Amino acid sequence: MSTATAVPDTMRAAVLLAAGEVEMQQLPVPTPAPDEVLIRVGSVGVCGSDVHYYKHGRIGPFVVDSPLILGHECGGTIVAVGADVDAARIGQRVAIEPQRPCRVCAQCSAGRYNLCPDMKFYATPPIDGSFCKYVTIQAPFAHPVPDNLSDDEVALLEPLSVGIAANRKGNVIPGSKVLIAGGGPIGVIALQTALAFGAAEVVVSDPVAERRDLALTFGATGVLDAITEPPAEGYFDAFLDCCGIPSAVVSGLGALRGAGAAVLVGTGSDEMKLPIPTIQNGELIVTGIFRYTDTWPAAIHLVASGKVDLKRLVTGHFTLEESAAALESTTTPGALKSVVRP
Amino acid sequence: MSTATAVPDTMRAAVLLAAGEVEMQQLPVPTPAPDEVLIRVGSVGVCGSDVHYYKHGRIGPFVVDSPLILGHECGGTIVAVGADVDAARIGQRVAIEPQRPCRVCAQCSAGRYNLCPDMKFYATPPIDGSFCKYVTIQAPFAHPVPDNLSDDEVALLEPLSVGIAANRKGNVIPGSKVLIAGGGPIGVIALQTALAFGAAEVVVSDPVAERRDLALTFGATGVLDAITEPPAEGYFDAFLDCCGIPSAVVSGLGALRGAGAAVLVGTGSDEMKLPIPTIQNGELIVTGIFRYTDTWPAAIHLVASGKVDLKRLVTGHFTLEESAAALESTTTPGALKSVVRP
Amino acid sequence: MSTATAVPDTMRAAVLLAAGEVEMQQLPVPTPAPDEVLIRVGSVGVCGSDVHYYKHGRIGPFVVDSPLILGHECGGTIVAVGADVDAARIGQRVAIEPQRPCRVCAQCSAGRYNLCPDMKFYATPPIDGSFCKYVTIQAPFAHPVPDNLSDDEVALLEPLSVGIAANRKGNVIPGSKVLIAGGGPIGVIALQTALAFGAAEVVVSDPVAERRDLALTFGATGVLDAITEPPAEGYFDAFLDCCGIPSAVVSGLGALRGAGAAVLVGTGSDEMKLPIPTIQNGELIVTGIFRYTDTWPAAIHLVASGKVDLKRLVTGHFTLEESAAALESTTTPGALKSVVRP
Amino acid sequence: MSTATAVPDTMRAAVLLAAGEVEMQQLPVPTPAPDEVLIRVGSVGVCGSDVHYYKHGRIGPFVVDSPLILGHECGGTIVAVGADVDAARIGQRVAIEPQRPCRVCAQCSAGRYNLCPDMKFYATPPIDGSFCKYVTIQAPFAHPVPDNLSDDEVALLEPLSVGIAANRKGNVIPGSKVLIAGGGPIGVIALQTALAFGAAEVVVSDPVAERRDLALTFGATGVLDAITEPPAEGYFDAFLDCCGIPSAVVSGLGALRGAGAAVLVGTGSDEMKLPIPTIQNGELIVTGIFRYTDTWPAAIHLVASGKVDLKRLVTGHFTLEESAAALESTTTPGALKSVVRP
Repeated sequence: MSTATAVPDTMRAAVLLAAGEVEMQQLPVPTPAPDEVLIRVGSVGVCGSDVHYYKHGRIGPFVVDSPLILGHECGGTIVAVGADVDAARIGQRVAIEPQRPCRVCAQCSAGRYNLCPDMKFYATPPIDGSFCKYVTIQAPFAHPVPDNLSDDEVALLEPLSVGIAANRKGNVIPGSKVLIAGGGPIGVIALQTALAFGAAEVVVSDPVAERRDLALTFGATGVLDAITEPPAEGYFDAFLDCCGIPSAVVSGLGALRGAGAAVLVGTGSDEMKLPIPTIQNGELIVTGIFRYTDTWPAAIHLVASGKVDLKRLVTGHFTLEESAAALESTTTPGALKSVVRP
Repeated sequence: MSTATAVPDTMRAAVLLAAGEVEMQQLPVPTPAPDEVLIRVGSVGVCGSDVHYYKHGRIGPFVVDSPLILGHECGGTIVAVGADVDAARIGQRVAIEPQRPCRVCAQCSAGRYNLCPDMKFYATPPIDGSFCKYVTIQAPFAHPVPDNLSDDEVALLEPLSVGIAANRKGNVIPGSKVLIAGGGPIGVIALQTALAFGAAEVVVSDPVAERRDLALTFGATGVLDAITEPPAEGYFDAFLDCCGIPSAVVSGLGALRGAGAAVLVGTGSDEMKLPIPTIQNGELIVTGIFRYTDTWPAAIHLVASGKVDLKRLVTGHFTLEESAAALESTTTPGALKSVVRP
Repeated sequence: MSTATAVPDTMRAAVLLAAGEVEMQQLPVPTPAPDEVLIRVGSVGVCGSDVHYYKHGRIGPFVVDSPLILGHECGGTIVAVGADVDAARIGQRVAIEPQRPCRVCAQCSAGRYNLCPDMKFYATPPIDGSFCKYVTIQAPFAHPVPDNLSDDEVALLEPLSVGIAANRKGNVIPGSKVLIAGGGPIGVIALQTALAFGAAEVVVSDPVAERRDLALTFGATGVLDAITEPPAEGYFDAFLDCCGIPSAVVSGLGALRGAGAAVLVGTGSDEMKLPIPTIQNGELIVTGIFRYTDTWPAAIHLVASGKVDLKRLVTGHFTLEESAAALESTTTPGALKSVVRP
Repeated sequence: MSTATAVPDTMRAAVLLAAGEVEMQQLPVPTPAPDEVLIRVGSVGVCGSDVHYYKHGRIGPFVVDSPLILGHECGGTIVAVGADVDAARIGQRVAIEPQRPCRVCAQCSAGRYNLCPDMKFYATPPIDGSFCKYVTIQAPFAHPVPDNLSDDEVALLEPLSVGIAANRKGNVIPGSKVLIAGGGPIGVIALQTALAFGAAEVVVSDPVAERRDLALTFGATGVLDAITEPPAEGYFDAFLDCCGIPSAVVSGLGALRGAGAAVLVGTGSDEMKLPIPTIQNGELIVTGIFRYTDTWPAAIHLVASGKVDLKRLVTGHFTLEESAAALESTTTPGALKSVVRP
């Protein structure tokens, strides 16, 4: 392992012990494996899944039954490299793609490493995340970033990757007409991404007036009150659900033209009653996304070129010691994204 | 219009007046448009949709509110051609692709003519079908068939087209592992088609023992009792639902490996409760088929080359006058396909 | 046919009699078929193929052996409609997609109507083009345009369609690295389109310094002297040849990463010596484009939203009577696009 | 490492010292890495590339400048496993996918591991192959085979993988019309594979009458004398070149319908003069294959189910000591495949 001079042996970390219980601990700095790099963390975004683990201690089958460091939207600076990694990378600012697929299973071999059954993903029990000073990742998943990206922007490349994955699955191309349900952080990112993909129309549906107004400031070509204004039937090429509410998905399916694609991004509903003849008669494609593959280079380009604005999404900053407050902050009215800066 | 000598002015037709009420009528023989051919009908298969119109007088938004000739699985012999069609085709045996898309809308232009909003499809109100002596169709949709195909086989190229469309949507390729729910006529056709597409494993799930036994005689590599034997989780590349029963679709989704495809072919359920995290976490593709595009040439090849056996599906023959009996016959235990021979 | 009041019986037209010989003639205004519209022509761009017909009297197998009206980059205002077209369209400003496919052959049915063997294309012998006052086209191929598009921009949606088709075939998506050979009108349009498709890098190679400078003003992220600066090997995701010069294609193929796509847009070479092991070992995709399908809606969006600048391409204006001069003008140094305004 | 009792320390190997010079040597048995298995080799097929290295000491940039063991079409029995591999696999009969991609580069991550720039492939300098008693490979690339496959068939799954890769790239599906140039071993395998993929017509073109006759016995629906009988123009959906002769490729391109695919499999020509307007006007896809990804499961199925006959390709057997003779044997008239049995 090659190391910059300044790496200590231990570090501060915000550790989730159980639902609602975060404790600051002094933990060993992790050692990078031969193919890994050690990164001093810059900014970490707070994701809805972090909040869910914090509040409920589990997400479906994933249970926090031992201490867990949350946080997976992050970047930083390489401070050490494993034996097989070019030491010249020490000092490089990078964004972290926070997944460790096995690389050899059928899904990995087919290029769908996000679906690897042996995935080890940051902040998913029992794998630690990045609410701490130092983390490791395989060298290729430490993506170099240009200087004109701030630490916060680097961290938010992760949710932007979700937006990119969603728009890819939805086959959004120049000229597309896109409907997005939900004007929260992911909805706003999906909106910006759709526009950056060349969509001609992007309509955002949300029941909250402020969120609709916000969507307009981010370039939405139209907004709909999700309660009172159903989308036009058979009109859209793609529908991206970013809210997880069944009624929104049902009306979104009806809004697609034949052979249109619905991408289910929003979570929260274990099952939904879906209109089968609508899917069949229109040969609709209904699918979902589970993280992402190969999105960071595109994400970096979209932000560096000014096509996507991530900075304006940040509505709160917190220190590592304030991690619990950061996790609480997302339900504040008007909050979009909270960022922890270790 | 060029005409063979033997075409009369009027013909016998079995006309559905209302639910359960079929009347034989003497009607004018239709005149082919300039780009159409006139066909003397050979065999006509009875489809589940014919039976549904017969029993209920409607399918969803399509209502039989004026007299309607049912039947759309058919072929025959060209006896006259419109002004723009080569008269040398008179005498040719053909299979009928029973749809008339507009050819110029966005869906047609994109190659998805089955999704044409202005489609005129046989036996879908108010368009007449083929329980009669003569029908017309655009010349390119009268597909020439080789001599070694019987009239019944020619008619059943239509449901085989459904099987082909389903296997295409399911991305079935050589080596695929396919789960099929439902061992009825469409299930057995989808099974044979999957094998002809090179599937390595095709497992059929059905609650009825005779149907499972039948599936095995058609080459199923395995069968499951739909009530007591759930399919292996995360195992199959494709799932073709040919029964329309929600519990079958739910277990079929769970049986798919990541990025697998579920094709909903079976009808009957207006809505189904689907497990959203299963779709999302596996990035499953859930879609349906609505008829077919460009399937007849492949269908003709599969039957002519012996890869698909349609003859053995026929369990009853009826005359045109017996059309009502034919429509009633499909619920007889052991019945698969009934054929009317005008 | 429904008609606006102002349509005369005859019109002025610039007619190509033989190579180099254009004559103004007074010809009958064409009558729209039932599914067509009659359009009073606004602007007409001069295409390289027009110039080729003008100079050589033929392009490959297409020979001008009877009088021919050139011009196929055009738009205008609907002044009459055929019997089956909504008369409310009279007065609408439209861009013309100048092709008449048969709509029913295998290629048309598959959504590849540009490859229709029975295509009737403007300004391709013996089909007349638009260097005249009035033309007809099938109603769906008269694409409505917003008011903020000038007549010149409307005309140049046709070469923009070429750029869109090329970028689609090259699988250009957000983040792509694209190499373009040739900084002429099509190269500059392909460049702008690649950027609008989200390409992160677009490098233009041309031997002429002014063309390289021009490419930079249109957003090229890099330029190369085609004579002295070979592109980086194995670097680009897509290569769009817009010059038709064999050496450019050979170096472009070498510049592609594995599984990259080369789209041959430039014409002029009947055959090229291509490096087969380069294609094989990289599993490169080498293809070409022949016109376009379904590009106008996207083209209109790209121009209306300001992502593509067509106005700056226009370097000369001519009246209909000056058509010969317009055809001669394209070889003037610095000339990009000449426009005829009937 | 877990080991079966019978593994010795050294083994016999046929080593290529220079062009034309093969020497039997006693070499150490390789040790499997933690993620590898050690395989006692069954049969090894002789590939054209082996013969080329033997005769010329190089293939393009790959030069035999140190002793090299040839052979990459092989299988055998697992006799030891690395630390991370399930020891229960010892004793398993397997086919070997003879490649070692890096698994982490952009190509590997995208599912195109065959295009990995850091590939280590059997029998490609400086990586040893399988003309020896024992070889190692990563565990997932030792594909278990059923008992009903003979050692020779197991070895020839490798060239069958080439046939599968070619037919996939050519988009061969049920009903396709396929033209194959060259009736040698790869041509005959591509032919059988095309039929197994459901092709309705497969026409083989070869100048040698015996090869045409042989192709007919393997199911070709037609044969053409490559010298005197050009293929029908614009007729085929796919063209698979399995001979590498420029004139065959040129006529093959002309034989494709619009949007058809040409897959260049045959080697030997560094460059070819290709007809660019044919590629452009037909929007043909011209590509090649470089080995394969994810083909063994399908290959095993095609042979185990009797759809592809590999046994009949074997025209000569040799011992390890006869390796040089095996390499010489492939030019014997009538020879198709020679197999070495260590």
